[in-house]
Amino acid sequence: MGQSGATKAVGILISGRGSNMRALVQAAQAADFPARIAVVIANKAEAEGLDYAKAQGIATAVIPSKGKSREVFDAELDAALRQHGVEIICLAGFMRLLTAGFVESWRGRLLNIHPSLLPAFRGTQVHERVIESGTRFTGCTVHFVVPEMDEGPIILQAAVPVPDDATPETLAELVLAEEHRLYPQALRLLAEGRLRVDGNRVRVLGGS
Amino acid sequence: MGQSGATKAVGILISGRGSNMRALVQAAQAADFPARIAVVIANKAEAEGLDYAKAQGIATAVIPSKGKSREVFDAELDAALRQHGVEIICLAGFMRLLTAGFVESWRGRLLNIHPSLLPAFRGTQVHERVIESGTRFTGCTVHFVVPEMDEGPIILQAAVPVPDDATPETLAELVLAEEHRLYPQALRLLAEGRLRVDGNRVRVLGGS
Repeated sequence: MGQSGATKAVGILISGRGSNMRALVQAAQAADFPARIAVVIANKAEAEGLDYAKAQGIATAVIPSKGKSREVFDAELDAALRQHGVEIICLAGFMRLLTAGFVESWRGRLLNIHPSLLPAFRGTQVHERVIESGTRFTGCTVHFVVPEMDEGPIILQAAVPVPDDATPETLAELVLAEEHRLYPQALRLLAEGRLRVDGNRVRVLGGS
Repeated sequence: MGQSGATKAVGILISGRGSNMRALVQAAQAADFPARIAVVIANKAEAEGLDYAKAQGIATAVIPSKGKSREVFDAELDAALRQHGVEIICLAGFMRLLTAGFVESWRGRLLNIHPSLLPAFRGTQVHERVIESGTRFTGCTVHFVVPEMDEGPIILQAAVPVPDDATPETLAELVLAEEHRLYPQALRLLAEGRLRVDGNRVRVLGGS
């Protein structure tokens, strides 16, 4: 990628089209970006995002998760990540729960993005539930991963107004646009060593 | 108040200083505001907001709630509101739960403001819990009151970024400034007949 060894090596985990993976790949192409995408790993051979990564000249791997215990899968995943020298992991639409052991061993170096203003609207079917609730604001959250799903110290969030006529599909598009902006920004902060975790809170050194 | 009979008569219920009551009173002083404050009622004689209302030439009443059953208190409250010709009720830091019967009889005409982006952070000690959660956005919500506490169709919300160095006190100040802007805006929409409730969602006719 023509970047120096001083940048952090990032592994991105996907299960589908990986639109946030694309946003991270594009951001990392900037000369001053402090991280490089070392590998994109999917738990399904048919994950559409793999083709994009290959076309960008990025190493890819498929580690099938189907029928495998969490422990076996996570051990294979961990080995692949270390083989590619990965220092930071970004989950990007990765639809497989990771074991507490894996998560703990990557604590502080494992990021996820969720399409709501956490702690509101954890889980799935987020946009449906947001619309049903009648709330006027939603958003997205980049957070450190902890063993509990959709918890973990929050790094950055963006708020998105919910239009009166929103459908789950139109709202997903609006929130995705913010996700694609926010995730690279959070990765940059982590790669630059500018995040300090204090209990459940994250402080951004030098301002975000 | 020098306003015509075409404006809606509003009763405001307070328990303390009633800073949102003050914001509503000030907004209603504008010549084009579609509601007038007919009475401010407190459930405690020592509620500081009463003096302000009196000084503004607004009728006030104290209906002590202490030691009274909810049913008895709500019946007295209802009588006082009707005596003042009240058509819309605004709760403004009113710290007494209302009976389901009272709430149902005022359905669609009874507003509350809550210092969070509902449905997140219902209940009390909101700012403490917001800060503890590490979330980057909070806000405030004006909603129709239903028998369940801090539920009910959401009319308007404002989002407020949580500063890194926020304390419950400084965050309360930031959110209050938005509350004072938002509550009059929601009252205006209701008084103008521009709110349509559709299940749990509120549509603002003509845009907010």
